[in-house]
Amino acid sequence: MKYCSECGARVELRIPDGDNLPRYVCPACATIHYQNPRVIVGCIPEYDGRILLCRRAIEPRHGYWTFPAGFMENGESLEAGAARECWEEATARVDIGSLVAVVTVVHAEQVHMMFRARLTRPEFAPGAESLEVALLAPDQIPWQDIAFRSIDYALRRYLEDRAAGEERLHVTHFERPTAHCPAS
Amino acid sequence: MKYCSECGARVELRIPDGDNLPRYVCPACATIHYQNPRVIVGCIPEYDGRILLCRRAIEPRHGYWTFPAGFMENGESLEAGAARECWEEATARVDIGSLVAVVTVVHAEQVHMMFRARLTRPEFAPGAESLEVALLAPDQIPWQDIAFRSIDYALRRYLEDRAAGEERLHVTHFERPTAHCPAS
Repeated sequence: MKYCSECGARVELRIPDGDNLPRYVCPACATIHYQNPRVIVGCIPEYDGRILLCRRAIEPRHGYWTFPAGFMENGESLEAGAARECWEEATARVDIGSLVAVVTVVHAEQVHMMFRARLTRPEFAPGAESLEVALLAPDQIPWQDIAFRSIDYALRRYLEDRAAGEERLHVTHFERPTAHCPAS
Repeated sequence: MKYCSECGARVELRIPDGDNLPRYVCPACATIHYQNPRVIVGCIPEYDGRILLCRRAIEPRHGYWTFPAGFMENGESLEAGAARECWEEATARVDIGSLVAVVTVVHAEQVHMMFRARLTRPEFAPGAESLEVALLAPDQIPWQDIAFRSIDYALRRYLEDRAAGEERLHVTHFERPTAHCPAS
C-alpha cells in the first residue's frame, strides 16, 4: 500500500496512538488502513466413495491438483462460498457438510476453511480456472502433485476420518512454506 | 475505496474480465482491489467453572458485555490471535482449547472464530478497551447486556455443551442484524 484509498495522499507506515503494530496511516485524512488475513473456503466433494479433484489452470501451482477452494467473498457464508468455488472450478453442485480442517497459513496471511461435501450428481466439467476435473478413488489421488500443503493436510485427515467412520475437525497452522510445496 | 492504493489514481467499480463480481479497478495501473471478509478471533476463558467476561469501553456496543474477541492480525495463527485478544482486553493468560463456534456474520462481512479456553491463573484486569472484567458463574451472566449476537450464540452453545460433557463445534451464519442486538 502506497496511497490512501480514501483521499489519494501518500500513506505512512507507523504505529497509531493506542495501537501496538505498524499500520498504513494517512497523514492527510487520518484514515488507518488495517490489513488482515483473508479466508479461503473449500470443500472435498465425494460421490460413491470417490473424491472430486481439479487440476489448476492458473498460477500459483499451475498444473497441480486441488479440491475446489478459493477466496471467500463479501456477502456469503462460509458454506455458500465453498459451494460457489465448487461450481466455478468444477461446474459441480454439492451439499456442504461438516468442517474437516481449519488451517491458518501464517506466512500467506490466510485462514483455510475446508468442508466435507457430497456431489449431488456425478456431473462436472472444468471451470475457467481448471485444466481438468476428475472423480478419483483414494488410491488414484496424485499425492506428489497436490497444489498446496493445506489441501494435502485436509485430504489426508478426511480420508483417515472416513476410514475410522468419524467426522472430526482438525485445526492447525503452518508457519512457513515447505520445500515439498513452495506455494503453500 | 476511492483511490488506488498502488498508484493514487481514482478507481472505478466494474466487473473485471473473467470475473463475475464488481471490483474496484484502477484504470491507470490495472490493479484489481479485492475486498474480503475479515476474521474475528475470540475465546471463552473458564476458571473454576466461571467465565471471564469484559464490559466494552469502546464502540460499537460501549458498556455491553463480551468475552475477549477482536480482529485477527497478519502474522498470527487463530489460536495466537484469540490468546492475544484475551491479554489485550482482560490482561489474562489462557490456554486455548477447541473451537466452539464458527459464525459468518454475512452483513458485517466477518467470520467469527470462537475457542474454548482455560485461564491459567485467576488474574485479570481491564485492558484499554474494557471498562471492567469479571469472572462470572453461568447464572451471573448478564444475558440482556451481551454486546453481539455471535457472542450470545457462542456462550450459550458453550454452556450447553459443558452441561452435556461435550465439546462440539457449532457452525452457523447470521444474515442480518436483529432488533435485540443491532450492532451484531
